[in-house]
Amino acid sequence: MSLQREEPNYFGAGPAQLPTAVLQQAAKDLVNFKEIGIGAGEISHRSAPGVAIIDDTKAYLKKLWKVPDTHEVFFLQGGGTTGFSSVPTNLVASFVKKTGKVGKPAYVITGSWSKKAYEEAVRLGFDAQVVVNSKTIEGKFGDIPDVDQWKIPSADDTPFVYYCDNETVHGVEFREFPVDHFKGIEIVADMSSNFLSKPVDFSKYGLVFGGAQKNVGIAGVTIYIIKKSLLDHASDEELRKLNVPISPIAFDYPTVVSKDSAYNTIPTFNVHIIELVLEKLIENGGIDAQQEKNIKKSELLYSTLEKYPSVYHLPVTKRARSRMNVVFTIKDGSLDSEFLKEAAAAKLTGLKGHRSVGGMRASLYNAVSLHSVELLADFAEKFAEAHK
Amino acid sequence: MSLQREEPNYFGAGPAQLPTAVLQQAAKDLVNFKEIGIGAGEISHRSAPGVAIIDDTKAYLKKLWKVPDTHEVFFLQGGGTTGFSSVPTNLVASFVKKTGKVGKPAYVITGSWSKKAYEEAVRLGFDAQVVVNSKTIEGKFGDIPDVDQWKIPSADDTPFVYYCDNETVHGVEFREFPVDHFKGIEIVADMSSNFLSKPVDFSKYGLVFGGAQKNVGIAGVTIYIIKKSLLDHASDEELRKLNVPISPIAFDYPTVVSKDSAYNTIPTFNVHIIELVLEKLIENGGIDAQQEKNIKKSELLYSTLEKYPSVYHLPVTKRARSRMNVVFTIKDGSLDSEFLKEAAAAKLTGLKGHRSVGGMRASLYNAVSLHSVELLADFAEKFAEAHK
Repeated sequence: MSLQREEPNYFGAGPAQLPTAVLQQAAKDLVNFKEIGIGAGEISHRSAPGVAIIDDTKAYLKKLWKVPDTHEVFFLQGGGTTGFSSVPTNLVASFVKKTGKVGKPAYVITGSWSKKAYEEAVRLGFDAQVVVNSKTIEGKFGDIPDVDQWKIPSADDTPFVYYCDNETVHGVEFREFPVDHFKGIEIVADMSSNFLSKPVDFSKYGLVFGGAQKNVGIAGVTIYIIKKSLLDHASDEELRKLNVPISPIAFDYPTVVSKDSAYNTIPTFNVHIIELVLEKLIENGGIDAQQEKNIKKSELLYSTLEKYPSVYHLPVTKRARSRMNVVFTIKDGSLDSEFLKEAAAAKLTGLKGHRSVGGMRASLYNAVSLHSVELLADFAEKFAEAHK
Repeated sequence: MSLQREEPNYFGAGPAQLPTAVLQQAAKDLVNFKEIGIGAGEISHRSAPGVAIIDDTKAYLKKLWKVPDTHEVFFLQGGGTTGFSSVPTNLVASFVKKTGKVGKPAYVITGSWSKKAYEEAVRLGFDAQVVVNSKTIEGKFGDIPDVDQWKIPSADDTPFVYYCDNETVHGVEFREFPVDHFKGIEIVADMSSNFLSKPVDFSKYGLVFGGAQKNVGIAGVTIYIIKKSLLDHASDEELRKLNVPISPIAFDYPTVVSKDSAYNTIPTFNVHIIELVLEKLIENGGIDAQQEKNIKKSELLYSTLEKYPSVYHLPVTKRARSRMNVVFTIKDGSLDSEFLKEAAAAKLTGLKGHRSVGGMRASLYNAVSLHSVELLADFAEKFAEAHK
């Protein structure tokens, strides 16, 4: 059976394109891992090669993204959506331990994912507060309002402030989160869709998490990078007394960390794919090189689209434009299907916008090559010339 | 790159051996799925081929295991351990809807997995009751006490009775659960380690669930088969008033079912492997044929070990012996490492017992061939002859 494929030009928002060489190696390892006679999905997560996959993946991630020793890396199942639930449950448990109080988790809402995270905290019974909701201010998602329009919460009553570093659906990304306005408050970032796309100063973060299925793997694993001091929780009895929900055991951060991410069976093969992606990123020059490539790709596409203001509309304010998800619409909406059809004919796929937003979305994750973006920019240019 | 391997004789307890042909096909599909140019782990879970993977897997499972229309199949992440949390949370929510009462979830404890499930219900704050604990009765796990020793709960105060159909660690399996003693009570079975190993009469069950990583796939997906009437939950407000924990949204059964298992990103590639395993099971004659093979394999091994009572000890009472996990010890414990070493030299691997039990464990899941078991039985015979 052949493991060859033509290099794809796939701009899907996630799950997303991965490096072909990574998938070819993973395919081989699925059948026979390191010549041990069985595959990476069949070995025990407690066997030596199983444990090595977890440990190597953690080590590569720490090295590549310069994660300091103050922070711990661990893996969970359940995707970013499970993070929406596990973040308040776990971080309030450490806030109770530290202060004896439940407090009010604070949310910065700049798109549908941070909105969902806020809604889940409320649904679980937390008294969550909104720091800012850009839709309330602007009438729609598509910008990050100036911090002087935010309602900064008080440190002694706020277990954490939560934001989504890159909003996949609306194409809104933070250049830099205004951490200095949140002195004494733990910062939590959902980086599901720009994970490992740029350097991050982890000393400023209490927790960064992200689903693997955009930049680092296939669906099934979520990576957490947490400040170790936040792993100290109040007891279940104390939490129950304060009416704080108890985390399901498989999503209790201290339990999972104490078992090196294998409290229960971890999807070893899915973690192995992350391991291979990280190896390749290191090989290709690390995070700085990847960021440079990502800037180049997104600038090329945005600048091409901007050249045709009569054809393309860019709904996101310039300062908040995502380097991962380039959202645009065709002003003449009746051309949408023609655009997608002709793009597909040119082997450019995965461009349809999210159902809640419409239009187009080109996701330029790490594995999407500059060459693919050049082809897309060329196509967008020709399409615009024909329809301007 | 080669996708060949010698047929393994791997007896690991899970993750476990899968059919080589399934892994070879999956490996190819990881790089290029159905010639669409990208792999099954890269496609969107909302794309046509992504949705087809979910729907076909459900359809194959229903057909193969004769799941009636009264029941719904869905997939979750998080393994069986997450089931320990999600089962009481969800089933109590439907019991509240039906009766207005929280009730007392009832647990049949016959090994470490059902014990863990009970402990998790207690940890989450449920007033769980023990129907029977075979360790309390016998001093150790290794039998299923007669039902006249069980404390049968009252139907109007019991949202469900929970048991583990096959205890992987202790090698204890139910031939038949005494459902008739639980009139009016929903039966919940954890079948993680004997999923699809035998026919099941689903009309008797409220819920059957199992992690994929023994008989049907790699880790990362758990399959749930639930009676549709149990998807009707009390509102979050009502549950909060009664102090019932609210399920994290990604594990709220009605939410997941309403979105056809794709409320959030489902690990499509992992589900695809299940799809391929099910196809192969159907091709090989279905569940009855598989059960027959499983009986033959386990009888061969048990009867071989029984021939040498001076060498091997079988700690599980005959009536409760698992057809999936054959647990045995070598009476002269100093021979353990020699047994494992010589077995490995004969290419028989994965035989070491669980760390909490010691000795040996040969897991004879669906994908382990009769030929592999014959090799193991031969080896056990020769080893016994040399050491009796």
